[in-house]
Amino acid sequence: MNGVKKLKVAGIAGSLRKGSFNRAALKAAIELQPADMAIEIVELGEIPLYNDDIRVEGYPPAVNAYREKIRAADGVLFATPEFNYSVSAPLKNAIDWGSRIPDPPYVGKATAMISASVSPLGGVRAQYQLRHMCVSLNCFVMNTPQIYIGDAAKKFDADLKLTDAGLRGELTKFLAAFRDYILRLQR
Amino acid sequence: MNGVKKLKVAGIAGSLRKGSFNRAALKAAIELQPADMAIEIVELGEIPLYNDDIRVEGYPPAVNAYREKIRAADGVLFATPEFNYSVSAPLKNAIDWGSRIPDPPYVGKATAMISASVSPLGGVRAQYQLRHMCVSLNCFVMNTPQIYIGDAAKKFDADLKLTDAGLRGELTKFLAAFRDYILRLQR
Amino acid sequence: MNGVKKLKVAGIAGSLRKGSFNRAALKAAIELQPADMAIEIVELGEIPLYNDDIRVEGYPPAVNAYREKIRAADGVLFATPEFNYSVSAPLKNAIDWGSRIPDPPYVGKATAMISASVSPLGGVRAQYQLRHMCVSLNCFVMNTPQIYIGDAAKKFDADLKLTDAGLRGELTKFLAAFRDYILRLQR
Amino acid sequence: MNGVKKLKVAGIAGSLRKGSFNRAALKAAIELQPADMAIEIVELGEIPLYNDDIRVEGYPPAVNAYREKIRAADGVLFATPEFNYSVSAPLKNAIDWGSRIPDPPYVGKATAMISASVSPLGGVRAQYQLRHMCVSLNCFVMNTPQIYIGDAAKKFDADLKLTDAGLRGELTKFLAAFRDYILRLQR
Repeated sequence: MNGVKKLKVAGIAGSLRKGSFNRAALKAAIELQPADMAIEIVELGEIPLYNDDIRVEGYPPAVNAYREKIRAADGVLFATPEFNYSVSAPLKNAIDWGSRIPDPPYVGKATAMISASVSPLGGVRAQYQLRHMCVSLNCFVMNTPQIYIGDAAKKFDADLKLTDAGLRGELTKFLAAFRDYILRLQR
Repeated sequence: MNGVKKLKVAGIAGSLRKGSFNRAALKAAIELQPADMAIEIVELGEIPLYNDDIRVEGYPPAVNAYREKIRAADGVLFATPEFNYSVSAPLKNAIDWGSRIPDPPYVGKATAMISASVSPLGGVRAQYQLRHMCVSLNCFVMNTPQIYIGDAAKKFDADLKLTDAGLRGELTKFLAAFRDYILRLQR
Repeated sequence: MNGVKKLKVAGIAGSLRKGSFNRAALKAAIELQPADMAIEIVELGEIPLYNDDIRVEGYPPAVNAYREKIRAADGVLFATPEFNYSVSAPLKNAIDWGSRIPDPPYVGKATAMISASVSPLGGVRAQYQLRHMCVSLNCFVMNTPQIYIGDAAKKFDADLKLTDAGLRGELTKFLAAFRDYILRLQR
Repeated sequence: MNGVKKLKVAGIAGSLRKGSFNRAALKAAIELQPADMAIEIVELGEIPLYNDDIRVEGYPPAVNAYREKIRAADGVLFATPEFNYSVSAPLKNAIDWGSRIPDPPYVGKATAMISASVSPLGGVRAQYQLRHMCVSLNCFVMNTPQIYIGDAAKKFDADLKLTDAGLRGELTKFLAAFRDYILRLQR
């Protein structure tokens, strides 16, 4: 792929813990991404809890950096755990900081989402709520294919490498579809 | 009401900003609460962004204090803004810290919710998602009456006092119904 | 259980097809119900598509019969397929006919829900939307346990008998919990 | 606009009653549509309640006709009432008949939605659930602008003409944005 411009994708993991299956899923996505895609993980841990009094004084540096990374990306790939049938607090926090005017960085952006959970349901309710938040963000979410990584502890090894062959195939197809989705929206 | 035991209600405002209409709505609720109810506002600003690695080392003091206040309450009254069609990040954060075993404090608790928003829709989508989170918390949410404070800037004065007469009447009835709901669940 | 009054439960299957896994799940529930519960399946196929012009002329006989069965029940057990991430049209239709004033029969009723689907997700999104409809119905939905019968074709035999031992155990516990829930709400 | 090919839009009113505000809203849309758009109302009243046993024997004529109208359209405009916090049963019914393989007609279609309700909330919860159904249909829903016609009885006159000047302006802009959305997806 010498000389080919790669599509920049911001990968957002909703969990802050080191052993997160969702961060691991993003790493698997990096491993399996198409040759013309470059996923970079955006960290959320330094972003303060949303407080509008802080916003009006000016975005903290971590918020600014995060917003610029979203803005610079051709697409956003969310990887969210399911906590209380919704996205995690760090992800909701990032979404709220990312939605503020002027120049909210998600507007018009191509996005896709995956979720990993130790539950067999694989985070489907978190994706349900996240899709709705994306309407408010005014970004575009890929409808299909969809990936719900249930029973996550059985799909990754001790080093958090995605070992489930079926899922590796699914994720490869998912990322190819996401590449096409990004390109379609850029036409 | 001398000598009568009052029902303790934890009031949770989803917004951290000083001029929050939702905190103001809780203050109006304190003003209008039944004689046998005592709403106390629980602050969320010191609770760190959820990270399971922190949890396994032991709850930070602010989390412990928050969980104990929920546990000690007869009921919980949420007042949530609507950010990106869902609850605020500080509220989601509190919910997630409040849901962890052992002894999650929301289980079986009587709850009710109100929302205030500058939008005419008054936060209905935030309540939609919050109700679902409450299924996961395994608490009980009052079905009706419901309060959506739309166009909030017109309903409170410059000192954040609820001045809208219709809403004051609605909130009074809402709190009386919540009192009955708490008592019914305690039978 | 001679002489003991049984709790009457209206079982509502969202699918009209003869080979419905959801009707089959209700039949399994009848087989596994506690000794003091009597589930009766309420059929929805004769209820006309909701039209408010029909309602104002008077409920058709099938609607009246359905409303009376709900009214007479101590509890309602929904068994819903998932079509387009929501409940089936026949179930939505029954809910809408069942919600009209005066004297809407679901108000205050104890309810629980199960879902069966050939998808591995087992209908979780249908339950998500159904729970919200139940807020509008002003009935009370059991929070937990929850049953999602995924990969349904593997859980029932050719005669539509629930053969999966794990699920039979889960359903038995679910029904015992529902019995307790009904009784608690009747105190 | 002589000789210009118009964009065909299928208008789907979720209510069957003659005095429906949602059908009236579609008629207002026809009145206010851009010069290069031609909205045609698709009637749902003859479509039988979904039963998969009927489907496997072959679509009834009313279902076939409906599916062909969706297929032939460049876009779909839903106008839905809110019943029990969701879309009406006739609309859910149409969605389910419209989603079946082979050749489901909604796939890839540009869609938009409005809602009218006598409630001040204007059907926002119905749109919430409908948007999610559209993910399953694999069509594309316009994010913004959004229209919620609350207190509908005050916005239409006795002949069901949309008289509210503000809403007429909003609807005109909405339809222009929908035209652009359809064209963008056809590139």
